[in-house]
Amino acid sequence: MVIRNAASHAAFRNDKMGKATLAAADHLFAGLNAFEPGQEHKLHTHAGQDKLYFVLEGVGEVTVGEQESRIVPGDFVLARSGEEHALRNPGPGRLIVLVVMAPPPSGG
Amino acid sequence: MVIRNAASHAAFRNDKMGKATLAAADHLFAGLNAFEPGQEHKLHTHAGQDKLYFVLEGVGEVTVGEQESRIVPGDFVLARSGEEHALRNPGPGRLIVLVVMAPPPSGG
Repeated sequence: MVIRNAASHAAFRNDKMGKATLAAADHLFAGLNAFEPGQEHKLHTHAGQDKLYFVLEGVGEVTVGEQESRIVPGDFVLARSGEEHALRNPGPGRLIVLVVMAPPPSGG
Repeated sequence: MVIRNAASHAAFRNDKMGKATLAAADHLFAGLNAFEPGQEHKLHTHAGQDKLYFVLEGVGEVTVGEQESRIVPGDFVLARSGEEHALRNPGPGRLIVLVVMAPPPSGG
């Protein structure tokens, strides 16, 4: 399966971070998280799942474990299973990140 | 873990496609495949592993199952477990793709 210009499939929402699915396979999930300025995905963990972010557009402030970083397009982030992570868009532009989780979430 | 400008970690080789590791975690592997003009990763399959490509730099010709496509930066490719896939760099520039496999390969 080929998806051209993946970032163009980002789905923004006014009330919270928007999610879009690129691929839901047996062993991994790939999608897009889309943040309007000021939106955030608060600190959380995934037990038994590794998660990576790859920044496609905009600027983010990411927390992974004890580390806080400003991330820009081309930057890569790994949150290992059980590792706390959060992602915020400080603005002023929109933020789009590619997200991959393995194994995929159950029940969508 | 944050890796800035992931593509800058690509490792080219003269004799064949170069590989670099970004993250080797319990449930996924993430890395970079780097192709000089004319290099290719021939048709192959991974049993029990899903694999995705995300194009970072250059132009590629990808085969996934029956589908052949020209891919450019921002394009996303999924090869599901057992699905044949190949990737070639037709040139004239270099090709760098982000690769994610889940579950990770055993023994590197």
